[in-house]
Amino acid sequence: MQIAILLYDRFTALDAVGPYDVLNNLPGGEVRFVSEQTGPVRNESGNLALVADATLEEVTSPDIVLVPGGPGEADQLTDGPLHEWLRSVDRTSSWTTSVCTGSLILAAAGLLTGRRATSHWLAVDQLRKWDVTPVRERVVVDGKYVTAAGVSSGIDMALTLAGKITGDRVAQSIQLKIEYDPQPPYAAGSADKAPGDIVAELRARSRFILQGPNA
Amino acid sequence: MQIAILLYDRFTALDAVGPYDVLNNLPGGEVRFVSEQTGPVRNESGNLALVADATLEEVTSPDIVLVPGGPGEADQLTDGPLHEWLRSVDRTSSWTTSVCTGSLILAAAGLLTGRRATSHWLAVDQLRKWDVTPVRERVVVDGKYVTAAGVSSGIDMALTLAGKITGDRVAQSIQLKIEYDPQPPYAAGSADKAPGDIVAELRARSRFILQGPNA
Repeated sequence: MQIAILLYDRFTALDAVGPYDVLNNLPGGEVRFVSEQTGPVRNESGNLALVADATLEEVTSPDIVLVPGGPGEADQLTDGPLHEWLRSVDRTSSWTTSVCTGSLILAAAGLLTGRRATSHWLAVDQLRKWDVTPVRERVVVDGKYVTAAGVSSGIDMALTLAGKITGDRVAQSIQLKIEYDPQPPYAAGSADKAPGDIVAELRARSRFILQGPNA
Repeated sequence: MQIAILLYDRFTALDAVGPYDVLNNLPGGEVRFVSEQTGPVRNESGNLALVADATLEEVTSPDIVLVPGGPGEADQLTDGPLHEWLRSVDRTSSWTTSVCTGSLILAAAGLLTGRRATSHWLAVDQLRKWDVTPVRERVVVDGKYVTAAGVSSGIDMALTLAGKITGDRVAQSIQLKIEYDPQPPYAAGSADKAPGDIVAELRARSRFILQGPNA
């Protein structure tokens, strides 16, 4: 079972690595980090680089495709090699998935048209641009398309997916191995729960948060 | 505020990247991935590489030091350049921290002697070897030493640390930005909660899980 995780400039690292450390534990799972070119791909801050070990051309029929989000998504909303690759691998994938604003890239590539999907809470409404129904849930499954909300939600998405692929028992075993028994020190992880003034402040900085310092 | 995240061969990626995407959002935070040599450092599976942008010699006085865990910790329990660096930066650090079996490295370097600390649930008892009191909690704070349990617990640790450094408000804002409102599909993330047969199975494979395929 080949799992392709797409990297592009200014992606968000946890979007990719949270699901990675779940899906890489699937029995028979073989993860490849893929990008237009092999070599280091920098995140939105430039102080982290993950290495792409394969080019788009080298990964032609992954079983699972995962698109992380991040400020760089803004550069990936127009047609080009990345969209072509996504449309191509989606023809044979068992699961096409995203974390955070990665769903905007899938939507822009035309893969979510008419479907339900989610994204980072500050970005989810943008899905309407591509005739996608925005859903404010942490993990949204519509057929083989599985989308997650912001950044850290990719872990929940990947465990959900692991359960669908291998059954509850293996997924639970993975959850125990990565000791995913979350105990956040605050109840501030969603716009419904966080203090109103903090929600308002992030909304006001929405463009900066979603697209980065150069937006 | 400089944050040094240590990389070594066969580390576990989420141990490093979970806290990274919290601490990198601290106002004035400047993260450096540091290792004995610059360049790609591979995780325990070999199919993921994070780039170290600085050598140990280049990072001499970080405010926060973070040591991830992973099967490669078994190679980092004897004295050498890495222990020397840890002891050196610990002299001036404000916080010395670890995720998962990273605490075994801190303990072996002599930095946790007489203190309370935690680690991955399968490894926590090993801390006794170095006169450290093992504590089965998700995040343990003992003075400036902050240790986290297995893999995913680094996110909780980093948010706890963010709160201590910058106050609750900034930490809550970071939590909302990364949408950390965990909703695991199972209640299987700790040995107390997971089905007993799964706990027993992982205990039986403990050496393999902690030290990797070559153990």
